[in-house]
Amino acid sequence: MRCRKCGDPAAINMRHHKLALCARHYPEWFVEQTARAIHKYKMFDPEDRLLVAVSGGKDSLALWDVLLKLDYHADGLYIDLGIDGDLAYSTQSKHKAVAFADARPDADLMIVDIPGLYGASIIDVARRRRRANRPCSICGTVKRHEMNRVALENGYDVLATGHNLDDEAATLFGNVLHWQSGYLQRQSPVLPADGGGLVRKVKPFCRFYERETAAYTLIENIDYIYDECPFATGATSLAHKETLSRMEHSSPGTKMHFYTNFLRAKAEGLFAAPDDAPRNLHPCAKCGQPTVAPDLCNFCRLWEPAEPSESR
Amino acid sequence: MRCRKCGDPAAINMRHHKLALCARHYPEWFVEQTARAIHKYKMFDPEDRLLVAVSGGKDSLALWDVLLKLDYHADGLYIDLGIDGDLAYSTQSKHKAVAFADARPDADLMIVDIPGLYGASIIDVARRRRRANRPCSICGTVKRHEMNRVALENGYDVLATGHNLDDEAATLFGNVLHWQSGYLQRQSPVLPADGGGLVRKVKPFCRFYERETAAYTLIENIDYIYDECPFATGATSLAHKETLSRMEHSSPGTKMHFYTNFLRAKAEGLFAAPDDAPRNLHPCAKCGQPTVAPDLCNFCRLWEPAEPSESR
Repeated sequence: MRCRKCGDPAAINMRHHKLALCARHYPEWFVEQTARAIHKYKMFDPEDRLLVAVSGGKDSLALWDVLLKLDYHADGLYIDLGIDGDLAYSTQSKHKAVAFADARPDADLMIVDIPGLYGASIIDVARRRRRANRPCSICGTVKRHEMNRVALENGYDVLATGHNLDDEAATLFGNVLHWQSGYLQRQSPVLPADGGGLVRKVKPFCRFYERETAAYTLIENIDYIYDECPFATGATSLAHKETLSRMEHSSPGTKMHFYTNFLRAKAEGLFAAPDDAPRNLHPCAKCGQPTVAPDLCNFCRLWEPAEPSESR
Repeated sequence: MRCRKCGDPAAINMRHHKLALCARHYPEWFVEQTARAIHKYKMFDPEDRLLVAVSGGKDSLALWDVLLKLDYHADGLYIDLGIDGDLAYSTQSKHKAVAFADARPDADLMIVDIPGLYGASIIDVARRRRRANRPCSICGTVKRHEMNRVALENGYDVLATGHNLDDEAATLFGNVLHWQSGYLQRQSPVLPADGGGLVRKVKPFCRFYERETAAYTLIENIDYIYDECPFATGATSLAHKETLSRMEHSSPGTKMHFYTNFLRAKAEGLFAAPDDAPRNLHPCAKCGQPTVAPDLCNFCRLWEPAEPSESR
């Protein structure tokens, strides 16, 4: 297999694009494709200040790298959730993020220390809420809240995450299997700011397969944490990814078409507009972030004393 | 495992319903559930005249059987497509339909002989149209046209087909993978008559798993053709069924929830209404059935002399 641009041996072959590229031309193509997605979905402008949510994994570090190469003002945010124990998962992944930033003079990394700030790791909170084996929903709540808080408090225009096509296709697959109307109507590469305290969120890698972001980090020598979070084992999203990967194997391009045809059908008006004031957001009594909950938002409720009767 | 109603040994266990039943109570439940689906989706009334599309397979014969037990005026229609060759598929399946009707004094069976009426089997047509290996789309066109024609010409109010949950879930899965807006907006257990020449179509078995209709025919001693159509091998719908069955295996109820949540989301207004006059139907110049094609409908075009340049 030869590179389409120069004829050298190819480093990667992308069957769904009918495109093979060498180790020199692949990163160029990858950066161009990112710029194209940013433009196509009107994610942000050159003067916007971006905050990149960095987990220490390949997707988020590759995203930060590409955004810096494209000369955006892009700072990093690492959220230390305190997932430690034997694997020292948080410690290890933080080291990868720090090492990445240290090697780049233009990369500023902010670190939010959840146990330090709120007095407990998400593992402690999960235990207190009797969800010790399944802290994923708590993790999601904490990350969403803190990313938004840091972006708002520091005047960022946009929050960028490294979700790739495999992530987005698996999320869409789950939303479709259960026909979650609200999620289907909202799933998008760009979630606009709502003016009431939610910052704009974008996913510039939403059209890259996971193996494409992996190939980019490999070729560009970006060191990242290889392990999945120890709590991800058995997660439904992984089962969906496996199902989609099996279909992709017998029919290359399945994930890509599934996701991009969804975006096209949506843009062409397949879905009824969600009710105009459906979610009835108002500021949380404690932190001020928008919430549908009656008093405290989900995040702030996590830190309240557990009620003795709580059984989940 | 014991029957929930009488405690006798169970003949079938339905994990998604948390229900096991014996060979006496299962058919009762099956008939009741059919009556409930007919009512729930407002499929037809006791005074309607029904035409049941009968293929000789388990689903359509079980459907005819149940509709007769429920005292509907239900006649059968067998369409002989002339799929013969080594397996004599059409001949064998016709024998099953005839034997079923012969054993029941209240069952009238009409037979439409495609080669006799139109001068060619669908295999001949597929060969002429250079689709010899893939006659499925031609088969679909012929069956839809002839079912509608016979129903209209003989004054039936409703056309009933034996599609089961596995069929409907696989169709929905395919529609979702490609985000076929029109198909998603129209897929339903009831397609209303349009007044311009399309008879109402209903699928009373749409909530039964395939193994449930199989169990019914087994217990009720309904003899049917076991083989799949020889041309079905490798069909995409079979691949979708396999994917869904794998998910069903690890998470019982997946197909049921996928399909019924779709119907619920649709009833609650997830989709924008399809354009009111989108399909722009008008009568075919030859047969008079509604079509979107400019002159002759797809069915009538099949019997025109093939153009020499036609390459599909």
